[in-house]
Amino acid sequence: MQRILNNPDNIVEEMLEGFLRNHSDLVCATDNPRAIKSVYSTEGRVGVVTGGGSGHEPAFIGFCGQNMCDAVAVGEICSSPTAKAFLDAFKAVDSGNGVACLYGNYSGDNMNVKMAVRMAKKEGLTVKTVVANDDVASAPKEEKEKRRGIAGEVIMYKCGGAMAATGAKLDEVIRVAQKAVDNTRSVGIGLTPCTLPAVGHPNFEIEDGTMEVGVGPHGEPGMSVCPLETAEGMAEQMLNILLPDYPFVEGDEVCVLVNGMGATPLNELYVLFNEVAKILAEKKIVIYKSYVGNYLTSMDMMGASVTLTKLDEELKKMIDMPAYGVGLQQR
Amino acid sequence: MQRILNNPDNIVEEMLEGFLRNHSDLVCATDNPRAIKSVYSTEGRVGVVTGGGSGHEPAFIGFCGQNMCDAVAVGEICSSPTAKAFLDAFKAVDSGNGVACLYGNYSGDNMNVKMAVRMAKKEGLTVKTVVANDDVASAPKEEKEKRRGIAGEVIMYKCGGAMAATGAKLDEVIRVAQKAVDNTRSVGIGLTPCTLPAVGHPNFEIEDGTMEVGVGPHGEPGMSVCPLETAEGMAEQMLNILLPDYPFVEGDEVCVLVNGMGATPLNELYVLFNEVAKILAEKKIVIYKSYVGNYLTSMDMMGASVTLTKLDEELKKMIDMPAYGVGLQQR
Repeated sequence: MQRILNNPDNIVEEMLEGFLRNHSDLVCATDNPRAIKSVYSTEGRVGVVTGGGSGHEPAFIGFCGQNMCDAVAVGEICSSPTAKAFLDAFKAVDSGNGVACLYGNYSGDNMNVKMAVRMAKKEGLTVKTVVANDDVASAPKEEKEKRRGIAGEVIMYKCGGAMAATGAKLDEVIRVAQKAVDNTRSVGIGLTPCTLPAVGHPNFEIEDGTMEVGVGPHGEPGMSVCPLETAEGMAEQMLNILLPDYPFVEGDEVCVLVNGMGATPLNELYVLFNEVAKILAEKKIVIYKSYVGNYLTSMDMMGASVTLTKLDEELKKMIDMPAYGVGLQQR
Repeated sequence: MQRILNNPDNIVEEMLEGFLRNHSDLVCATDNPRAIKSVYSTEGRVGVVTGGGSGHEPAFIGFCGQNMCDAVAVGEICSSPTAKAFLDAFKAVDSGNGVACLYGNYSGDNMNVKMAVRMAKKEGLTVKTVVANDDVASAPKEEKEKRRGIAGEVIMYKCGGAMAATGAKLDEVIRVAQKAVDNTRSVGIGLTPCTLPAVGHPNFEIEDGTMEVGVGPHGEPGMSVCPLETAEGMAEQMLNILLPDYPFVEGDEVCVLVNGMGATPLNELYVLFNEVAKILAEKKIVIYKSYVGNYLTSMDMMGASVTLTKLDEELKKMIDMPAYGVGLQQR
């Protein structure tokens, strides 16, 4: 395993040490070593919290910053933060106006967030939640509540964080974050597996010359394994899955996010985005805003996901708002 | 080869199409399809140009933006831009105040920049150059002029671009960019080779369980191949090479840049930075500013480089100036 590590059991601690040291203008520690917060005050407004397992950097710590998340609960590699970490993240950013906890649909996160919300209630904090379930490949549409959250979570943070920044009340922040999730669909294609440092070898396989459509960020099996396609073919396959699911149709204005899974060269993400843009143009679906880069990765996995969000006037305003974090900077 | 591509011969064209489409707020095309420029005006000041082969994204196109480079000449994968591309980049940003061409020390780039400068002179443009040669591993100190430019180029763009933004004259911009180069040392460690899409297999080898200290961004042989170290051991090895070369000593204030080579997970770059920071603290070398991320990559290569720049009051001002490009955002 060709990686840059000391003891694999200490990666998260050491990563956070380096992260906080490097980004002290933006983020700081809390009393809980597994919760970090932004240096920007939440005084007089709703606090926005997320959290998740590590190994997906810049997610989730990279979305802590201005007009996105105010605190982040940090889990071990590919495992949920504890309920206590979520609770301490809530407490770190509550200014009496309540907390919006925006996170992804994984069983560990669901369990720990629920527990943390109950613990917070006992301490007099109001926390409401939105769960991202944008990954079309992870369950049929009729069971949308079972779908995973993947890179669409970034759009949820962007919109929810922007709404909180306007000074809106908790219910309004929740409504807008939920609308962002409801309007968002994602699907990924995996080209290589990833290796958890503590394991030392891939925990699943993707044979050379094939690709796994719909692979999850922890190597969860996708919808199909098929021969490796060109970038054009990949874009076609992904949009054929995404477009009918919402559905996105002619005249719609959308946000497009092309997300690298970690080890895919950046130039290839632009090549893929270019193909996605060409198909959307043919279908007269208008790209209002786009993001291309590594947002929610799976360590050394190769591959990419495409996320589409249907925008209305309100979501456009949220998408347009400046934001500043390690994982997303927008003026 | 598990990559996201159409025809490997068209990667650069398609990447640029996607890049310009996605970042139209920041960069735009010129009449030459292999030269892009920033949307910010160079009116009344020196224009700053760089260029280099593709496959190193976000370098070099990602350093086109506010207070960094004003135009970038774009080469094919791992090959120099043409003299014409450099010339057209010069012309795109000259406002009569001259152009500073800041680039890395590779024979193709040297040749084409020289030719372009001569062609520019015939057309009445004044272009002066600075060549980054920060890679300590690529030649002994007595032959510094033979050393490659690697991630230290980013510090040259940052400082040169900032100086141009102050409205300084061409000679002053050149002086500051040259000082940034003179004060900068880098070294990399490669953990896996990279694969050029048009070739389809790695053009060199790094055996599992070993690492190549001083590997170049195109797989140029390093100083030594040795058993894979921990992050701490890698940081030690790299600083043992860098510190005596300048030399950096107790009391110095430095900028640290930890650069990922493309496929190394971001969390590991923070782990490495953390080790670098610990050693520098022991040696009482003060980190004034640090950058951690993917700045100058080698497609799917795993590994990282460390760059140190000795700062004086003038360079601190340059480093502190806000900058905004795809590859570097700083407020």
